[in-house]
Amino acid sequence: MIKFNEAETAENYTFSLGLRERINEVIDGVMKQGAEKLCLLGIGGTYASCLMTAVHMKEFSSAECIVENAAEYNATGNKRVDGRTLAIIASVSGNTPEVIVSVDKLHEAGAKVLGFISKADSDLGKKVDYLIEGDGNEQLKFLMAADRWMFNRGEYADYADFYDELDAHLADDLVDVERDADAFAADFAVKHMDDPIHYYIGAGNQWGAVYSYGMCYMEEMHWKRTKTITAADFFHGTLEVIDRDTPVTLFLGEDSQRPLAERVKAFLPKICANVTCIDTKDYELPGIDEKYRGHISFLVSHAVTNRIDANLEYADRHPMEIRRYYRRLQY
Amino acid sequence: MIKFNEAETAENYTFSLGLRERINEVIDGVMKQGAEKLCLLGIGGTYASCLMTAVHMKEFSSAECIVENAAEYNATGNKRVDGRTLAIIASVSGNTPEVIVSVDKLHEAGAKVLGFISKADSDLGKKVDYLIEGDGNEQLKFLMAADRWMFNRGEYADYADFYDELDAHLADDLVDVERDADAFAADFAVKHMDDPIHYYIGAGNQWGAVYSYGMCYMEEMHWKRTKTITAADFFHGTLEVIDRDTPVTLFLGEDSQRPLAERVKAFLPKICANVTCIDTKDYELPGIDEKYRGHISFLVSHAVTNRIDANLEYADRHPMEIRRYYRRLQY
Repeated sequence: MIKFNEAETAENYTFSLGLRERINEVIDGVMKQGAEKLCLLGIGGTYASCLMTAVHMKEFSSAECIVENAAEYNATGNKRVDGRTLAIIASVSGNTPEVIVSVDKLHEAGAKVLGFISKADSDLGKKVDYLIEGDGNEQLKFLMAADRWMFNRGEYADYADFYDELDAHLADDLVDVERDADAFAADFAVKHMDDPIHYYIGAGNQWGAVYSYGMCYMEEMHWKRTKTITAADFFHGTLEVIDRDTPVTLFLGEDSQRPLAERVKAFLPKICANVTCIDTKDYELPGIDEKYRGHISFLVSHAVTNRIDANLEYADRHPMEIRRYYRRLQY
Repeated sequence: MIKFNEAETAENYTFSLGLRERINEVIDGVMKQGAEKLCLLGIGGTYASCLMTAVHMKEFSSAECIVENAAEYNATGNKRVDGRTLAIIASVSGNTPEVIVSVDKLHEAGAKVLGFISKADSDLGKKVDYLIEGDGNEQLKFLMAADRWMFNRGEYADYADFYDELDAHLADDLVDVERDADAFAADFAVKHMDDPIHYYIGAGNQWGAVYSYGMCYMEEMHWKRTKTITAADFFHGTLEVIDRDTPVTLFLGEDSQRPLAERVKAFLPKICANVTCIDTKDYELPGIDEKYRGHISFLVSHAVTNRIDANLEYADRHPMEIRRYYRRLQY
């Protein structure tokens, strides 16, 4: 397997899960002080992470959960954000320009800000009220924060049981997913590396996964053209441009919106002979109860796309770390 | 001018504006009965209309405004929707399957439903609590409902003045926009009818406009491939796949998020020589005060794209009313 460090991959999840105590300390503290709204704020890939968390919360919680794109929040504001709001952000670099502006604006509105930042010694690291430092998996960190929020509201009775299972099995299971997906991913990479455009479709927490994969990985890192569309709206326009040879990949997760993706899966073969399904159900995840699989579907599909990335980078001879324009030009 | 009926175009807006008294009666009534949340619900094009309305409300109001895609709401629900919620839907056919299911689900949650439906004698016409019948401009109807909501909350002091101006000038002004845009639109149609893919970018209420134009018009009616992306996230991935000849069209409106679109406008020429800007500022709109132009930017850009549609339909010899699959196959 190309570019696969099993220990490092497992450690990435284990490290993130290990942040739970610190996350809970922050969440419990701000809720005791009266916080009652969440504001998930990001841009690009972190915005996609917010979308995944928000749809998970919508399924279980009656809490108000605001999702904001940082640049749009800076321009338009959101009068729902107030002194009883906890905002959550994430940044690897710690210096995402739009998010830096947002944190000031969130503070002006009276909100507190929890930041998952790789380096404490960064602009964002210094600005946030509650800093949780280090790398790891951003989506998993958002999930843990949201789950604690719901647990404290009495909306998530399975909380302890769910996280016991994650602590015991998740890291190994996701390593296994990467291993199990590698042969598929290598084929996919070669088959699709010259696609003029590739359609990606998803629903539920797979929509954030698809939005992020099409934009932050395929466009930004592989320089491949994509169109991403929700399974819901696929039937309200995009279906008309799909023909026999159009490359389409459908992500299927196991949360409440799986039926929307299944509807697309049932329809696509009627009009298209170039369909790929990335279905989280195809991966075993030993030790994770059936009823919890939907909560972490976005981690499973991400483990699969990690292998597409590694194989595509080699097949296409295009190192993923190079950028044409992003952070290389002034804009 | 191809396919341009001036009187009919004006009447479309005049009819919609004429619904205001009936809209106000509904809004005033439900608010008196205690409604305090709005839920804008749609799918495909009507979902895009919800997005335009929601960003307008976000700028001015602290009211809770929930936006739901109908199919996603049916699958996941939304525990924020309750007996103090007014949901607003729109349907031309009156039989959009996903929305029919949603109305039942909204009712189960205790919400009341206002429907802008073309025909009273339709599934949705019979289901909604408050029916406003007839054709006209859906986006304008949503705007009027939202504005009344904000006015009743004391958040929209200019309400009467704004609508006096619309009643007096909007229909004629938008007819003029269509006329003024036609030469541009005819050129655009011929220049871009063979594009393998075309990128559309927007911010603020132009994002809903772009999302809808790329999907419901270009994909569904013209069978053209598009990718739509927000001005905010354009800089977080999509920029990497734009090169010299990539066709890109940027919509610029005049609401709070205009600066986000202007940032894209300033950047694009550095990397792309095939950029079109559809800027609502280029159109005069006599009688409409400067400070109100942002509220109706989505109507201005829609008037421009109406002319692209008419010209592209002819240039491409592709009648807009034909569908390959939409409502022609079971799915």
